[in-house]
Amino acid sequence: MANFGGHAIPGSFFLLYGFWLTVKNILQHFWRTRLAKKQNNMPHLFKRMDYIEGGFKIFASFVGIMVEQFVVDGPHAHLFDKENNSWVKLMNWQHSTMYLFFGISGITLLASTTSKLVPAGVDRFGLSLALFVEGFLFYYHVHSRPLLDAHIHTLLLFPVFGGSVSTMMEVFIKENIILELLKACLFILQGSWFYQIGFVLYPLNGSEWDLTLHENVMFVTMCFCWHLTMALLLVACTSTVAWFMATRFSKREWDIEIGMQKTSSQTSSQKALLEESDEE
Amino acid sequence: MANFGGHAIPGSFFLLYGFWLTVKNILQHFWRTRLAKKQNNMPHLFKRMDYIEGGFKIFASFVGIMVEQFVVDGPHAHLFDKENNSWVKLMNWQHSTMYLFFGISGITLLASTTSKLVPAGVDRFGLSLALFVEGFLFYYHVHSRPLLDAHIHTLLLFPVFGGSVSTMMEVFIKENIILELLKACLFILQGSWFYQIGFVLYPLNGSEWDLTLHENVMFVTMCFCWHLTMALLLVACTSTVAWFMATRFSKREWDIEIGMQKTSSQTSSQKALLEESDEE
Amino acid sequence: MANFGGHAIPGSFFLLYGFWLTVKNILQHFWRTRLAKKQNNMPHLFKRMDYIEGGFKIFASFVGIMVEQFVVDGPHAHLFDKENNSWVKLMNWQHSTMYLFFGISGITLLASTTSKLVPAGVDRFGLSLALFVEGFLFYYHVHSRPLLDAHIHTLLLFPVFGGSVSTMMEVFIKENIILELLKACLFILQGSWFYQIGFVLYPLNGSEWDLTLHENVMFVTMCFCWHLTMALLLVACTSTVAWFMATRFSKREWDIEIGMQKTSSQTSSQKALLEESDEE
Amino acid sequence: MANFGGHAIPGSFFLLYGFWLTVKNILQHFWRTRLAKKQNNMPHLFKRMDYIEGGFKIFASFVGIMVEQFVVDGPHAHLFDKENNSWVKLMNWQHSTMYLFFGISGITLLASTTSKLVPAGVDRFGLSLALFVEGFLFYYHVHSRPLLDAHIHTLLLFPVFGGSVSTMMEVFIKENIILELLKACLFILQGSWFYQIGFVLYPLNGSEWDLTLHENVMFVTMCFCWHLTMALLLVACTSTVAWFMATRFSKREWDIEIGMQKTSSQTSSQKALLEESDEE
Repeated sequence: MANFGGHAIPGSFFLLYGFWLTVKNILQHFWRTRLAKKQNNMPHLFKRMDYIEGGFKIFASFVGIMVEQFVVDGPHAHLFDKENNSWVKLMNWQHSTMYLFFGISGITLLASTTSKLVPAGVDRFGLSLALFVEGFLFYYHVHSRPLLDAHIHTLLLFPVFGGSVSTMMEVFIKENIILELLKACLFILQGSWFYQIGFVLYPLNGSEWDLTLHENVMFVTMCFCWHLTMALLLVACTSTVAWFMATRFSKREWDIEIGMQKTSSQTSSQKALLEESDEE
Repeated sequence: MANFGGHAIPGSFFLLYGFWLTVKNILQHFWRTRLAKKQNNMPHLFKRMDYIEGGFKIFASFVGIMVEQFVVDGPHAHLFDKENNSWVKLMNWQHSTMYLFFGISGITLLASTTSKLVPAGVDRFGLSLALFVEGFLFYYHVHSRPLLDAHIHTLLLFPVFGGSVSTMMEVFIKENIILELLKACLFILQGSWFYQIGFVLYPLNGSEWDLTLHENVMFVTMCFCWHLTMALLLVACTSTVAWFMATRFSKREWDIEIGMQKTSSQTSSQKALLEESDEE
Repeated sequence: MANFGGHAIPGSFFLLYGFWLTVKNILQHFWRTRLAKKQNNMPHLFKRMDYIEGGFKIFASFVGIMVEQFVVDGPHAHLFDKENNSWVKLMNWQHSTMYLFFGISGITLLASTTSKLVPAGVDRFGLSLALFVEGFLFYYHVHSRPLLDAHIHTLLLFPVFGGSVSTMMEVFIKENIILELLKACLFILQGSWFYQIGFVLYPLNGSEWDLTLHENVMFVTMCFCWHLTMALLLVACTSTVAWFMATRFSKREWDIEIGMQKTSSQTSSQKALLEESDEE
Repeated sequence: MANFGGHAIPGSFFLLYGFWLTVKNILQHFWRTRLAKKQNNMPHLFKRMDYIEGGFKIFASFVGIMVEQFVVDGPHAHLFDKENNSWVKLMNWQHSTMYLFFGISGITLLASTTSKLVPAGVDRFGLSLALFVEGFLFYYHVHSRPLLDAHIHTLLLFPVFGGSVSTMMEVFIKENIILELLKACLFILQGSWFYQIGFVLYPLNGSEWDLTLHENVMFVTMCFCWHLTMALLLVACTSTVAWFMATRFSKREWDIEIGMQKTSSQTSSQKALLEESDEE
């Protein structure tokens, strides 16, 4: 999908997924550090969030594959054209393959949430693999393009492979909030960089970029760092908000509990009073 | 062995080894998580499996080296031809070297199974080394070939070096089922990719591939991801089947035990009854 | 800032920061190994040192950005010149971006010192990121320069990326004095190498270096190792001095304490004597 | 020292150092697994071995530097020739720098053996650094040489950087016998490969190798794997011999102890008999 929309759609998904991961991981971290001693069972909320995430991934991948295949100028599930002796729309097939692996990561998430037999960490392994395959296909995708086009796609490999490595590390180093937020941050960075690629290669205002100018390469490199700053800022803000919401919510629950105890003790003391008055 | 068979034979071995590793590791994982508390001693089955695996590796490597050396157009153990002042059949010598290291990995497995003096992890170190040497020789093997030929062999390096790294990690992170199944998966991937190389370079139906076409490179890259999907699926299915077989088998054993206890208690109660009736 | 001063200023900062880190980490190590059992609370000194370090980083980054922007031949906060259709002073913008990330690392240090909610290790993650971005921008900075210029900047990437990796490892492996001193050593190396770059590219005595001579590249490579030797020696000496100062200081404190106890016991024995004499 | 001897001398040192490391580490492993519970203090033998190793490294490095500097065609401590405006014998200076870092590694070993203040692991860090610097200088050393010369030196980087990485891992993963023997094995490999380089570049029998032939490159690559096999075999044999020597020696000590106990009990029983006979 070589147009602005074709970069904005995956970009939006990655951006939203980054925010989702931030909120999910902060809530889990809050529960681990604050509530795990009081409540032994992990709350149902986390299971439900994982079901939603896994289900959504599978659904979105399926839709993505279908769109790539059956869009007007798509391959319509034909791989090889025997008449012309050539492959049919390999770009769409490559995108379908990428989506497939995000679908597989959704399946691993569902499996590890549902069954205790599936070893812990399989969900993160699935996500790491999906990012690896994305980076792997992009890497061999970039060859023989103009300078700026190749460079801007190469920079995309940093959040993709970085995310793959950090997610793989989560398989071994569990419940480390820095790794979890780093993953979220790299997804946000990836999402915003997809938008940037769209803006550079398919500019909306019409003024095209010179794809061979070294100055443009230098600017784009620096711009990538600014996106990273933004991603860090967004993760920091979202985390803070999510943490204070969690604190407030769990306090209110606490207050309600205490309030109920108070009420019950009041009623019991009232009862006692009544009984006392009866005895008089 | 530059023909289809020369790629299908190692491919088949790697495929079978991947399945063997899946079953072995799942059985060990089952024992670790379910039975290790009840039975203190590791069952003899695992020792016997390791003896079989080690012995087979040594035997197969020996046969492999012999075939490479004494096949009709082989070097017949001659390394340097003084008359022509040139090396004799270096390709066969390289393959022999690869087999040699798989033989060494077999020896380390036998050694660490037999003796408690050999430090735990030496077997995995040996396997990691064998994969490293395989990748090392392939890496310098690939130079100055046509585009597609070089590319398809380069892709082989992913499962080979990936397997070497993950097996090396097993030396330090022990009894991690994800690492163990990853290793098995990468062996299956390697095996199926050997077949793919055979199909592309020595097509059975006769229609040759254009080894310089960029489109073919793109397809092959994507095809590698599909092989990975298949490998993941095969490991997942084999694991599930092996796990349920293990559950069932251990249950039946359990039932037999309980049944025997029941029988014995029945007979003892019958005896008691008889005795009681005797006393009457 | 393409002159000697432009390399000497960052060089001095990195050199001083390396010494500061050495002293700070040795003091912390001294406290961990000697005093942690006696005193439960971490002394206020360490908190104050972190506040000073964080505050200074933010201040220095702010000044650095302002100078890069509003120096006479700077971009004055203009990014794109619409008249000439070109970017304005991208080099200054790149340096500003580097400073920005050191500022962010200062913010993370302040945040993790102030609040217990910020997960431990965020400060080191921030510093690792700042070094990564510095190396990242330098890496794409170096293209298409003369041989020696490119080589001498490439060598700078060793302490930069080395420092980034070692600081990232500190996020996971905490309170390891070797890692901490390695980080300090790499900062000193980076600082002294900035000076070396200044001396080679903008020689003070006027005799210019031939930037294309292979011999010069060979010398510079070796010279880098000598700088490493010096950095190791400086860290070793500073550590020794800091350790003995800490031992002495903590002994004196101890002596004072004992002295005070003595005095108080003397006074109490004197009191007892007086009381005794009273009783007489 | 561009002749056979110039490669054989460092080769011999590395070979011997590999054997020394094997024996030392096996003895330490024997003590850790067998005797550490009975004896609390580490035997003096290990301290003495470390003193010898450290002292020898410092001495050998010093001699090496002196020889490189003051050999007949050496630089005689002159670095820059102002008359010809050129560097003096940079190759010798580079070798001196390499020796310097092995000297530093000797100093770190002595320091960490002598004083408990020096953090554990500094000795391994020093050795890792020495190997890193050796590899670093070799890497930039190899440029613009004929094919086979460059290739055979590049292969040297595998044991050098491999040793550096595995020694660095020992800083964090302590008392792991596999890592320790891997380090020893890589030193033996490095030593024997130095000999191989000597044989190829300065053949003793006079028949020179064609440095541009691809076949030779292929053979040399394979030959490297054979050296690895030999190194593994040598480490395995040396380990086995050292282990059984240690077992025997410690048994004999045990027997002597038991013997002494026996003797003493015999004498005491004899005494008792005598006393009994006296009483009769």
